[in-house]
Amino acid sequence: LAELKIELIAVGDELLMGLTLDTNSNFIARSLAKNGFRLAQMRWVADIGQNIHQALSEAWERSDIVLVTGGLGPTHDDLTRPVIAGFFGDRLEPRDDIRNALLRRFEKRGFTPAPGWEVMVDFPTRAIPIPNGHGAAPGIHFSQDNRELFAMPGVPGEMIGMMEDYILPILKKKSTGQYRYRVIKTVGASESQLAMLIGDPGKLLPVSLAFLPSNDNGVTLRLSLYSNTDSGESNSLITAEHLVSKAVEPYIYCKDESTIESVIIERMRKEGLQLALAESCTGGMIAARIVDVPGSSDILNRGFVTYSNEAKCELLGVSVSSIEQFGAVSAEVASAMATGARERSNVDIAISVTGIAGPGGATDTKPVGLTYIAIAGLKGVEVQRHLFAGSREENRKRATFTALSILFDYLKRR
Amino acid sequence: LAELKIELIAVGDELLMGLTLDTNSNFIARSLAKNGFRLAQMRWVADIGQNIHQALSEAWERSDIVLVTGGLGPTHDDLTRPVIAGFFGDRLEPRDDIRNALLRRFEKRGFTPAPGWEVMVDFPTRAIPIPNGHGAAPGIHFSQDNRELFAMPGVPGEMIGMMEDYILPILKKKSTGQYRYRVIKTVGASESQLAMLIGDPGKLLPVSLAFLPSNDNGVTLRLSLYSNTDSGESNSLITAEHLVSKAVEPYIYCKDESTIESVIIERMRKEGLQLALAESCTGGMIAARIVDVPGSSDILNRGFVTYSNEAKCELLGVSVSSIEQFGAVSAEVASAMATGARERSNVDIAISVTGIAGPGGATDTKPVGLTYIAIAGLKGVEVQRHLFAGSREENRKRATFTALSILFDYLKRR
Repeated sequence: LAELKIELIAVGDELLMGLTLDTNSNFIARSLAKNGFRLAQMRWVADIGQNIHQALSEAWERSDIVLVTGGLGPTHDDLTRPVIAGFFGDRLEPRDDIRNALLRRFEKRGFTPAPGWEVMVDFPTRAIPIPNGHGAAPGIHFSQDNRELFAMPGVPGEMIGMMEDYILPILKKKSTGQYRYRVIKTVGASESQLAMLIGDPGKLLPVSLAFLPSNDNGVTLRLSLYSNTDSGESNSLITAEHLVSKAVEPYIYCKDESTIESVIIERMRKEGLQLALAESCTGGMIAARIVDVPGSSDILNRGFVTYSNEAKCELLGVSVSSIEQFGAVSAEVASAMATGARERSNVDIAISVTGIAGPGGATDTKPVGLTYIAIAGLKGVEVQRHLFAGSREENRKRATFTALSILFDYLKRR
Repeated sequence: LAELKIELIAVGDELLMGLTLDTNSNFIARSLAKNGFRLAQMRWVADIGQNIHQALSEAWERSDIVLVTGGLGPTHDDLTRPVIAGFFGDRLEPRDDIRNALLRRFEKRGFTPAPGWEVMVDFPTRAIPIPNGHGAAPGIHFSQDNRELFAMPGVPGEMIGMMEDYILPILKKKSTGQYRYRVIKTVGASESQLAMLIGDPGKLLPVSLAFLPSNDNGVTLRLSLYSNTDSGESNSLITAEHLVSKAVEPYIYCKDESTIESVIIERMRKEGLQLALAESCTGGMIAARIVDVPGSSDILNRGFVTYSNEAKCELLGVSVSSIEQFGAVSAEVASAMATGARERSNVDIAISVTGIAGPGGATDTKPVGLTYIAIAGLKGVEVQRHLFAGSREENRKRATFTALSILFDYLKRR
């Protein structure tokens, strides 16, 4: 039972200064997991030669595979290439094949490279260049003592191309066992409520259970098991999934990599339903999540971002008097927004959101986080009141997920 | 010159499985940087006792401050509390003050806690509880040999509260020097072009320069310097900022923590201008970025998410014949969308985006990534053609940033 030990090093001051949100490491973790591997550790390291060297040395010591992102570009703070060469006792030499590939790329895209681009031509003599289908600098592959180091650029598209086309195929060839997992995604119950419904997780052994709560996707349950048999799913994983699914059944919205929005779109497409959105405080976030799913045009007829009262009245037919009487953040206005969006778009279902995301905007009777969400369908309109307790961004994310879960629930009951 | 060495450990299988995007570490890095500190390293560690223990031991060995997030909740995979106690040779004992605070919280929010909640009452005898203003579990503060360990929950709102109310004030008291930095945010030039304009970064020493490119915020330049003088900004940092600003002047959109959308909102508010948006492939992302800024209601009159052709025609007055003749992704339709949004909303400026985000939707003449962005103002409409080369998500993010930068440029020229 020899699981590949995989570590990731993300190089870049911008990570440690908080100037860049690290979506690369999330992508790498996710694509490893999807392919039956497990990331053992990830760390951020500054653009300082000796720090990168030390991180490499610790990771190389205890891992079969070391992945590195960042620091391969042409500017002076890009140190990954020389540090890796130094770490393996190798030196950098210009390579004609890399030079020619870069020149072809510049020519094809019709631009003159800035001085300094030629450092990208220097490459460790004992390493293999990883082709870069989406950018200039090649990746670096060092293979030694049955261990592999792969260094990729920090630009997401370039990193993704190298992971998918070069690195994952090599890992699959090297691996003997598999880390298998199943996810059960839920909406409408808290982590504690789910834990109570499931009971002692010891009864699931050798399968382990994790609770993964989030602001924008409900609580995900993950069941996992490492095994070196190749015979499809192991029985204990199937048994554990049945047990847990049965315990939390009413709250499940999917059991795969889907999102609540993709489940909704699939369902509405099958039933031939059309959707309209009327967003105030979420300001387009619900629409953006839906449009993020390829093919969402089949069900999303239109969206209104009616952040101003004027837009609520003109586009959705909300009456000025109801805004004056109840306020823009009220059950009455939420209902009128959903009804107006549904009728004016001539669709089956419309969802509206109006709330006080904060930090400003609260009144004596209406605190920050107060949010009304309405859904209008064939049989009329329903409205829910929620009070979220986070920052502006969190409140908007929760309102977005809550609106999606109300729509999911509505489709289920329909 | 003794800079506080700060390391962060983020505990959680969900990070290493890619099921959760780590926004916590980004927040912590950013708020340390804003307050004159620098995060030296961050790592993700799995929910395995000995891995957490080893990470703690390596970080404690070489740091003044160790921050930990995650694993303080009530479920069986929450191991941070016992591991920390064990690491310091301490034991957990139930504390009445924590129990009472939890019971008060449950009562206030009117729910019955799930069985198992009582583990949160157990606390290391030699540690100080960090008050949790936004959730149940208290944080843990260990102080030993002039070094500090702070453990926070993984729930963003709870972590943020503890950082701001408890941890940062203690760090400020302990610190003697300051890591100072300035950012210069640019739009319209590549990393290489900026590097060429600036020239040898050696002339900026002792100030160091970093290039931080991104899909959704242009290229940020960061100048940084550590110093233990308290006398405001150091001269070398000011000199370096002048040199670099002068070199890249036409591309700067701000020199602070602002975003391009906040700069736009500020400018439009001052000039009393109103904006409307007409989004197809970006599907609400531009609106969502604008609404993310508190007070954006002053300038954002409304947004249309016209993902369907029907919505483009009905809401924006695009003619069916121009969609048939030129296609929905064309300069003509982009122009008609912007003009229609501007006229029908009776605003000063309208921006429209229509493109093929991918992976599907390409034709022989229109590849994935092809995007038209139009801006309509008092003097007519301008349209730009762009070809983005990323994933669906990246193309939508780039289209969003490009639309914002076109609007910024328009306001500058106005």
